[in-house]
Parts: sequence; C-alpha cells; structure tokens
Amino acid sequence: MPRPSLKENVVAAALGQFHRRGYNGSGVKDITDAAGLPKGSFYNYFASKEEMAVEALRRYGAGRELGRLKDPSLPPLARLRAHFVFLAEDIERVGVECGCMFGNFATEIAGLNPVLREAVADGFGRWVEAVTETLREAVAAGELDADRDVDLIARTLVRGWEGSVLHAKVTGELRPEEFFAGVFDPLLGTRTTS
Amino acid sequence: MPRPSLKENVVAAALGQFHRRGYNGSGVKDITDAAGLPKGSFYNYFASKEEMAVEALRRYGAGRELGRLKDPSLPPLARLRAHFVFLAEDIERVGVECGCMFGNFATEIAGLNPVLREAVADGFGRWVEAVTETLREAVAAGELDADRDVDLIARTLVRGWEGSVLHAKVTGELRPEEFFAGVFDPLLGTRTTS
Repeated sequence: MPRPSLKENVVAAALGQFHRRGYNGSGVKDITDAAGLPKGSFYNYFASKEEMAVEALRRYGAGRELGRLKDPSLPPLARLRAHFVFLAEDIERVGVECGCMFGNFATEIAGLNPVLREAVADGFGRWVEAVTETLREAVAAGELDADRDVDLIARTLVRGWEGSVLHAKVTGELRPEEFFAGVFDPLLGTRTTS
Repeated sequence: MPRPSLKENVVAAALGQFHRRGYNGSGVKDITDAAGLPKGSFYNYFASKEEMAVEALRRYGAGRELGRLKDPSLPPLARLRAHFVFLAEDIERVGVECGCMFGNFATEIAGLNPVLREAVADGFGRWVEAVTETLREAVAAGELDADRDVDLIARTLVRGWEGSVLHAKVTGELRPEEFFAGVFDPLLGTRTTS
C-alpha cells in the first residue's frame, strides 16, 4: 500500500501544476515528474487525472483559510477585509499570472466536466457561505443594516474578487485596493483607511 | 490563394470551438472539421493555432457590439445598462456554460502565452475604454457626479461582469439581475426598474 505522505506529495505537485498550467495544460507525467515519482506510480494513488484534480481543488480550498473568518479578535467587517487582504497576498506570493485556481477551473473546465464542476461549485459554495456568515455577524454587531441582503452581498464580493483576479492575469497587476474601493467599500459602506 | 470567405469560415469555426472548449481543449483538426475543411488546408490561412486564436478573439470582440455604447437615442446610463443586458442575452444564447471568451482566455492562457495575453488585453482594453467613455458622457449629462472616478468604475463594472459570468459557469445560471443589484446600481446610484 502506498505511503500517505507520498500521496500528499502528488496532491501538492498536482495543485502546483493545475494552478499554473490549467487542467488541460497539465499532464499526469508533468505532475509525477514534479512529485519526483515515476509516471506509472500515479495509479497507486488516483484512478484518474480528474480524481486527482478534485483532491487538488480540495487542498486549494483549505489553503483559503476560511476559518480565519471566524477569528473573534476582530470585528466582522475588519475580519472580512483581512480575508481579502490575505487572498491578495497569497496570489502575489504564488504569482498573479496563476490567478485563483477556483476561477481558473470555473472558466476552463466547469462547463465541460460535471465532476470538476461539482468540485469547483463546492469550493465556491463553502466560500460564499463563510462570507455570508461573517456578514450576518456584522448585522448582529450593528456594523451592517439589518435590511441588507447578505446573501447577495456575499455572492457579489466573491464574484467581484474573481473578476479582479481574472483581469489581473491579463494586466499583470492585482491592485487589491481597486477591489476595496470599487466593490468592498461601496457595498459595505466602509472606507479604506490604509 | 485561398478565398477570403473560406478563411472567414475557419475563423467562425475557431471562435465556436475556442469559446466552448478553451484554447488547450481545441485542436486544429476539431476546428477544420467544424469548418468542413481538410486539416491540411489550415496552414493556407494561419501560420499557427495561436495566430488563429488571435483572429477569433478579434471577431469575438467585434461581437460585443461596443458601437452600441455610442447610440445617441438613449441617455448614457440607460445605454450602459442596455449594453450589459445585450451581453447577458448573448451569453444565454450561446450557452451559460461557455461563458465569456475574453474571461476564459484570461484565466486559461493569458498567464502562459504573451501573444494571447496581448490579444485578450486588447479586448478588455477596448471594452473598458468604451465603458469609460459612456461614463464620461453620463457625467457631462449630469447623470453622474463629476467627482466620480470613471476609470475605476469602468474597470469595476467589467471585472464584476466577468466574475458573474465565471460564477455562472459553475452554478449554471447567469442571473444578470444580481449583477445590476449588486454591482451596477450601487456603483452608479441607479435603480433597477424592471
């Protein structure tokens, strides 16, 4: 039976390749090469490239650190801002040209492959739900009027973020301050102070 | 010398394939098959798949009908709203699972291929410029306060739109009314009446 740590290496290598080169642009051999394993060993871990991509998307989702949106040391809207600052820093760290793996898979493959569409939908769904929950806390804390449609705001924030990251792949610059000034602050009635 | 009309057929077939299946997902043979031509004839028209994709992106851009943003029969902001309604109808017509070809190419290939990145940047650039120009007209017509940052608003509208279309590829529903309620109306101080 293959060692779990080696499977983890393959998932990490898959995430790196898929994030940088897309689903169709990444071959199984690219991934096993990146993991330092023979190509034939791949099927010890996964039944298909598709199954590996589902696992890579899950790991990518875990890297979004949605748990931070529950951090009680910050008020809800400050926490939400910190969440997008964290995502921006993560994208700058990996490379703006790689964008968001959820967004990449959404546009490249979700319309063609139901299994991967489901995996990306799950990633977006958890993310939108975590943002909605933080917005509900903002309402409870009096930071947001109770008549606001927190579900729509959450979807709009996530879509606005994805559009910004998509555009950054073309311009080469993420410019998160434009997301805050153009989307976040007008929607939430906040002001960017830094 | 090949007939121009046959080249046009190849570009139309290329646009259809690239829009539906992406850049890496579309082979030259898929495209010549769709155009009803032998694969070997491809190189009568294009030096490479990349060159054909640049041409398909140009044709896609022309299909956005940016000229309608100058239609003098409507006030500027109504014209801008009609523009996004037109884009939504176009996406519904082609199929929500196909999304926006600019957005698809942005996420799939712009970070990896400088020639295609330039072609997508040109498409977004013309679009943002046309939206900015309409917003300037809205300021001149007194529909928008003169101190608004029309460049930022234009980029935010285009990014918000792209994020909505990207998300729709995953959910299967475009829901343009959420773009108007979440992005367009709050940014422009308008209200959705229908």
